[in-house]
Amino acid sequence: MEDAGTYLGTMRTTAPLVHSITNYVAMNIAANVLLAAGASPAMVHAREEVEEFAGLANALSVNIGTLDTPWAEAMEMAAKVMSAARMPWVLDPVGVGATQFRRDVCARLMALRPTVIRGNASEILALAGLGGAGRGADSTDPVTAAEASARDLALRCGAVVAVSGPVDYITDGVQAFRVANGDSLMPRVTALGCSLNGVIAAFLVGQPALPATVAALAYYGLSGERAAQKAKGPGSFQVAFLDALYTLSPQEVTAGARVVRA
Amino acid sequence: MEDAGTYLGTMRTTAPLVHSITNYVAMNIAANVLLAAGASPAMVHAREEVEEFAGLANALSVNIGTLDTPWAEAMEMAAKVMSAARMPWVLDPVGVGATQFRRDVCARLMALRPTVIRGNASEILALAGLGGAGRGADSTDPVTAAEASARDLALRCGAVVAVSGPVDYITDGVQAFRVANGDSLMPRVTALGCSLNGVIAAFLVGQPALPATVAALAYYGLSGERAAQKAKGPGSFQVAFLDALYTLSPQEVTAGARVVRA
Amino acid sequence: MEDAGTYLGTMRTTAPLVHSITNYVAMNIAANVLLAAGASPAMVHAREEVEEFAGLANALSVNIGTLDTPWAEAMEMAAKVMSAARMPWVLDPVGVGATQFRRDVCARLMALRPTVIRGNASEILALAGLGGAGRGADSTDPVTAAEASARDLALRCGAVVAVSGPVDYITDGVQAFRVANGDSLMPRVTALGCSLNGVIAAFLVGQPALPATVAALAYYGLSGERAAQKAKGPGSFQVAFLDALYTLSPQEVTAGARVVRA
Repeated sequence: MEDAGTYLGTMRTTAPLVHSITNYVAMNIAANVLLAAGASPAMVHAREEVEEFAGLANALSVNIGTLDTPWAEAMEMAAKVMSAARMPWVLDPVGVGATQFRRDVCARLMALRPTVIRGNASEILALAGLGGAGRGADSTDPVTAAEASARDLALRCGAVVAVSGPVDYITDGVQAFRVANGDSLMPRVTALGCSLNGVIAAFLVGQPALPATVAALAYYGLSGERAAQKAKGPGSFQVAFLDALYTLSPQEVTAGARVVRA
Repeated sequence: MEDAGTYLGTMRTTAPLVHSITNYVAMNIAANVLLAAGASPAMVHAREEVEEFAGLANALSVNIGTLDTPWAEAMEMAAKVMSAARMPWVLDPVGVGATQFRRDVCARLMALRPTVIRGNASEILALAGLGGAGRGADSTDPVTAAEASARDLALRCGAVVAVSGPVDYITDGVQAFRVANGDSLMPRVTALGCSLNGVIAAFLVGQPALPATVAALAYYGLSGERAAQKAKGPGSFQVAFLDALYTLSPQEVTAGARVVRA
Repeated sequence: MEDAGTYLGTMRTTAPLVHSITNYVAMNIAANVLLAAGASPAMVHAREEVEEFAGLANALSVNIGTLDTPWAEAMEMAAKVMSAARMPWVLDPVGVGATQFRRDVCARLMALRPTVIRGNASEILALAGLGGAGRGADSTDPVTAAEASARDLALRCGAVVAVSGPVDYITDGVQAFRVANGDSLMPRVTALGCSLNGVIAAFLVGQPALPATVAALAYYGLSGERAAQKAKGPGSFQVAFLDALYTLSPQEVTAGARVVRA
C-alpha cells in the first residue's frame, strides 16, 4: 500500500455515480462528502424506481441507520441488482446489535454478498453473532476485540470487512491491514461513518476491494487530520473536513497514509 | 439556580443515550448538537423496533415537525415505554396550531405524560387550547402572552413547560424561572429549537425536571451568545454554536447563566 | 432588470411562509437558505394535513429528489391547492430523466400548472420529452442545449422555465434572460439547486413570475460569488454562502446582478 493516493486519483477521474440508500441523519452530509471527494451521489429509495436506478449507478452504499420495512425492501432490491451485475456495494450495519429487526434485515442483506461491510467494533461483533450490543450508533468495544470476528465474517460472506476505530482494521479474511489515520473529533460529528461508506463505494469502482477500501480509509482519516489542525470544535471540524476531502491531492494521500499490514 | 453548570457536568459524565424521534429537517443538526454537548444520540422510528429501542435509552425526545401517521404511532409507542418506566421524555409540539392533525397527535402524546413540553409561545398557547396559530415553526406571539397558559398546561399535564423566546419562561405550574441567555441569530438557523429538546432530554436523566430544564436552556443560550461573537451570519453562527456547545465548561455555564425566578 | 435587488427587499419585508415538499437531502439546507434569505420555511408532507397547510402558505416549493408514492400524492394535493388559489408554486424535477416513475410523477405535476419550473439542462430536456437522461441530480448537457426545449415547455405549461448552469437561462416562452452570477463551487455542495427553488418561491409572492425568477437567480448566484471569495473548499463555501444570503443588501444585488436579455 505505497500507492493509496492513486485510488483517489482514479476515483476523481471516473467520478462514479454512487447510489445511496442511507439514513435520514446522514443524507445531507453523505452527499456532501461524496461531492467534496469528487464522486456523484444520488439518494433514491422508492421501490417504484430503486431497481431501475441501481442499474444506472456505478456503486451502491446501503446504511440501516433509520431503518423501516419499506426501506429495508428497497435496500434488498438495489443490492440484488448490484450483486447480479457484479457491481460493488457496501453495507453499513448501524446499531445492528440493538434490536431484532436490525439483525433480521442485516441477515437478509448479507446473503446478497456485499463487497464491503464496514462498521464499528460492536456492530461487527453483533454481525458475527458474538454479541457486542453497542449503544445505538456508538461502539462500546475496542477494535482489537472484533478482529477475529471480522476475519470470520469476511470468509463467511466473501466480503472485505472494515472495523472503524482509532486504528481501523480491514481484512478479506486472509490478508489484513491497519489504518492509523483519523482524529478524535470524527466521532463527535454525526454520520461521518455513514458517509465514509459512500467514499468506499466510490473507490471500489473498477478496483480490487481490499486495497481500495484501505485507500479510502486512509484518505478519509487523513482528511480528518487536516481538519483537526483548523478545528475549534465539532462545528468547525466538519467544515474543514469537507474542505480537506476536496483539496487533498493523491500525492498527499500517498505521503500521509499510515497503513501497515496486520 | 446558582449551579446551572453542574447539570452540564453530570450530563457529560453519564453521556446519556437519547432516543430521538424528530423531524427530517432537524435530524442531522439535532444529532450533532447532542454529540457536541456530550450525549449519545440515536434516531429510531420504525414501529418494528421503536419500543425495543426505547427500552435501551436513557431519555426520549419527540418532535412533530414533519409529522406523518406512522411516525405519530411510533412516537406514542416510545413515549409509552418511557412513561411506564418513569424515564424522562420531552415533547416539542412544532406548529401544533397549524392543523387539526397536529392538535390530535399532540393530545394523544400529552396523555402519555411528557416530563417536559417545550415550544414557542404560539405553540404553547395552541396546546393550552387558547389559539396561537403561529406560522409554521415560527411564533407570532410574545413569550409573556403564553405564561399563564404555560402554568395551566404544566399543572394539567404534570409536566415542566418551557416557552422559548428572547427570554425563556419555564414553569412546573408552581415555581417559574426566566432564562435570558440566547442570541437573535438562533431563530435564523433551522431546527435549533428542535435540537434543544434533545439537550433537555439529556439533562433530565437522573435530575429533577425543573432545574435541569432551566440549566439546559441557560447552557444552550450561552452557547448561542458565544457563537454570536464570532458569527458573520447564520452559516458561521451554526458552526460556532456547535463549537461552543463542545467547549463551554460547567464553570463557564454557571458564571454565564442569566436565570431569575419569575 | 435594473432592479433585481428590489425583489429581495420586498421579499424580506413580507417574509413569506414557503411551504416546501422537498427531498430528505435538501430539507435542512433548504430551510436554512430560506431563513438566511429572510423568508419563513415550513416542511409539511403528510396527506392528513398537507392541503390544510398549503392553505396557510404564501408559496409552495415542490422537489422530487427522494421521491416516493405517498410523497408524490402529497405534492399533487398541495399543488392543487396553490393552483386553485392562483398562488405561486415551483417545481424542481430532480433526475426526471432517470426513471419512468419520475417521468410519470412530473407529468401529473406539470398538469397542475407550476408557476416556475427550474432544473438543470438534462432535466429540462427530459421534461420536454427530448431525452437528456442526466446522471442522478447532475447534468450531462450544457444549458444552451436546453434553451429551445425551455421555451417550448414554457409555452406548453404556461410556466416560467429556468435552466440552471454556469450561465442560467430563464424564459416564459416569449421573453428570455441570462443570469451569469454564480460560482463553480455551487454544484459541489449538495441541494443548493433544490434550495434555490424555495428562494424563487419566496420571490414570486405578489410579483410577476419572470422578473422575480430572474432576480432570485441573480441574488442566489451573487451570494455564491461572495462565498467563493472566502471559501477554501465546499465546506467553508456552504457556511459563507448562508452568511452572504443573509448579509447581501438589495442595493448590492442590483449592483452585482449580471443579467442580460437573451
